[in-house]
Amino acid sequence: MNRDLNPTHDPQLRSWISSANQPGTDFPIQNLPFGVFQRRDQPQESRIGVAIGDRILDLHQCYRSGHLQNLPEVLQQACAESSLNPLMALGPWSVAMLRPLLQNLLRADCPPPRLSEDLLLQDLQVEMQIPATIGDYTDFYASLFHATHVGSLLRPHNPLLPNYKHLPIAYHGRSSSLLLSGRPIPRPQGQRKGADEPYPHFGATQALDYEMEVGFLVGQGNALGKPIPIAQAESAIFGLCLVNDWSARDIQAWEYQPLGPFLGKSFATSLSPWVVTLEAIAPFRCPAFTRLAEDPPLLPYLSCFDNAKQGGIDLTVEVWLQSALMKDQGIQALRLSQANFQDMYWTLAQMVAHHTSNGCNLRSGDLLASGTISGAEEGSQGSLLEITRRGAQPFELPSGEQRRFLQDGDEITLRGYCRRAGYVDIGLGLCQAQITASI
Amino acid sequence: MNRDLNPTHDPQLRSWISSANQPGTDFPIQNLPFGVFQRRDQPQESRIGVAIGDRILDLHQCYRSGHLQNLPEVLQQACAESSLNPLMALGPWSVAMLRPLLQNLLRADCPPPRLSEDLLLQDLQVEMQIPATIGDYTDFYASLFHATHVGSLLRPHNPLLPNYKHLPIAYHGRSSSLLLSGRPIPRPQGQRKGADEPYPHFGATQALDYEMEVGFLVGQGNALGKPIPIAQAESAIFGLCLVNDWSARDIQAWEYQPLGPFLGKSFATSLSPWVVTLEAIAPFRCPAFTRLAEDPPLLPYLSCFDNAKQGGIDLTVEVWLQSALMKDQGIQALRLSQANFQDMYWTLAQMVAHHTSNGCNLRSGDLLASGTISGAEEGSQGSLLEITRRGAQPFELPSGEQRRFLQDGDEITLRGYCRRAGYVDIGLGLCQAQITASI
Repeated sequence: MNRDLNPTHDPQLRSWISSANQPGTDFPIQNLPFGVFQRRDQPQESRIGVAIGDRILDLHQCYRSGHLQNLPEVLQQACAESSLNPLMALGPWSVAMLRPLLQNLLRADCPPPRLSEDLLLQDLQVEMQIPATIGDYTDFYASLFHATHVGSLLRPHNPLLPNYKHLPIAYHGRSSSLLLSGRPIPRPQGQRKGADEPYPHFGATQALDYEMEVGFLVGQGNALGKPIPIAQAESAIFGLCLVNDWSARDIQAWEYQPLGPFLGKSFATSLSPWVVTLEAIAPFRCPAFTRLAEDPPLLPYLSCFDNAKQGGIDLTVEVWLQSALMKDQGIQALRLSQANFQDMYWTLAQMVAHHTSNGCNLRSGDLLASGTISGAEEGSQGSLLEITRRGAQPFELPSGEQRRFLQDGDEITLRGYCRRAGYVDIGLGLCQAQITASI
Repeated sequence: MNRDLNPTHDPQLRSWISSANQPGTDFPIQNLPFGVFQRRDQPQESRIGVAIGDRILDLHQCYRSGHLQNLPEVLQQACAESSLNPLMALGPWSVAMLRPLLQNLLRADCPPPRLSEDLLLQDLQVEMQIPATIGDYTDFYASLFHATHVGSLLRPHNPLLPNYKHLPIAYHGRSSSLLLSGRPIPRPQGQRKGADEPYPHFGATQALDYEMEVGFLVGQGNALGKPIPIAQAESAIFGLCLVNDWSARDIQAWEYQPLGPFLGKSFATSLSPWVVTLEAIAPFRCPAFTRLAEDPPLLPYLSCFDNAKQGGIDLTVEVWLQSALMKDQGIQALRLSQANFQDMYWTLAQMVAHHTSNGCNLRSGDLLASGTISGAEEGSQGSLLEITRRGAQPFELPSGEQRRFLQDGDEITLRGYCRRAGYVDIGLGLCQAQITASI
């Protein structure tokens, strides 16, 4: 969480790849997020890449061409693997060594000879893959505003449960149905029961929703039985991406008592393809959420000075919706929400410390998602459940259509970016998917 | 679910391995469960084995010695792998071909030459491993009696929630902390709060419990978006084992609202090492639990003739406890519970059909556990939570000690076996672990 001006964050740094210097790019030379891709002409082989502007640097090819030869052998090998897991498992030193080396290869004043063109791929040449083998997926509920909004719909007199401010609530999610951004989301079927109906019935959900979240991929995990103290918790995390935890609210409402969400969410969760390292966003760290004077004291395992001082992340997240009709009519997507990750009640370090406090082991590649990110105000709510008050207050799209929940053909796009005076913006890329008819 | 006398179930069949013919063995020649082991003299290599009496048949060595050469090449290769996943992924035909072939090699009247001794290992020569790479672990709540017992402790006036008889409730469990039988279970720490205390505190659980369950390992799974109809649901399952879903009741009670169990269970779940195929227990199938006349109608996706007629399994499960003091005093373990899987409200086929009804994909090796198996009567309750009424009614051990929940040094053993007149008993082996002090 060092916010000193690390040379890799230098705003003066520019790349000889011109798209990386364009205002508005998510992937300037200060970012260098990691992903996994297959070349369309070699679809059997997955490789690690680094995004730079609109290009993808092929790390496997860099390794074979000898560009990584000054790195420790184990790090070179990890760059030539077919998923990020071995690289992530090495711990934070790997990124600390890789970033300056890759920046040197890509910087505008890089001494010749430049990288050969076949090391730099275009979007169209590749198909992105899920960046890591994800063993377990844990979804938190770390936004006080989201929990309060949702709680007030279900329990108007008692919106926030007594445990909320004592521990970061979470549940285990389904890892088999994690999907890369771009994969369509068929409307799921399931049991649902209206309040006035005597029996449930089975059919396509009528309350399909998104959840705007940030996901954190575990780097070096912990052994079973060895909790990670909060002061070291962030070093267990490799980086972050965007997560859309699709939710069928009617299925969820009927099934979730007493053991929590199951089929209302397990049909699909979308991930953005690029993993932005914690090192890349170091300049955008900020204090943790300010607990109110009347809030209960934090137990020691969830508290440390560094966490309070800079456990937050000044990261803007947005949801955009474009219906099929809007697309037909040439109407741009509508922004439904803009919120900031610094408004989360619980920090990343607290989530990691809590998750492992009972000895539970995190493995490299495991995904920890934040839960829906909502702010206090209208316009900052990260789900339709909140925006439309569970469908009771529909809103109008620029095409004249109404929305309570998602309709077939709707495309949801999540964006995320860090912005701060004196630094170059760091983007997370897009997490995008379209709803299709029930199968 | 064919209950005709398949030759592999012939009770007259005996093995030339005498321990397989002893009354009381879990692993007669009619069983042939699959597991994964490492030889202690070759600890780097995991191999598939089949239990027969007190010996383990090394399938990798069988393959290399040409004993499998009459099988399809893909099946031979799967037998030489280091986990059960490739074999399980082939689907039910693989077991249908393997069982008669292995029985022929092991039967008493097997024509010479007999298998060479180095194909048959002793317990002491091997260390058993988790039998499969388990991606996702789902835990159901399929016992009406368990749900009613637990519900009556939490909600005396409303023990069974309205959804219970409409769908098999489940939650996602933690797969990273799945442990093989034999691994000790350190007492976990966590947040807990007494009803009279103003704030929670952090420390070792004072309410450590077991849950007696049966687990089902997925064989050939389904593609995302392709539900498995109930009539085909059992063909997605390779076999079963015993599962102890360790639970810290105080941690669980404080954390579980509104998203379900998390750290109260994620510290450890124990599995027995041998996977008994559904084919091996075919003679012990029985009708599904008889729904009462006043029970709500089943939705069609959870109902089919075969399921009603023989969706149940006549499988006895038991929990035994031996405290450290009992061990010191030479006192045998005490049986705490004996129940039967046929008393489960929901069948295996219903669990599979429901799990995939929203399009969720099951992958080979995924684990579906039944939830705690309890009967209606005293003596058939599968958790201490039920037996001691959440600690309110302690019981006495033969050593004079009292138990409300588990103490350090306690060893819990689960057993499971199918027994029916005219057939040889089929056992599941043991799932055993000792509680150790908090780390």
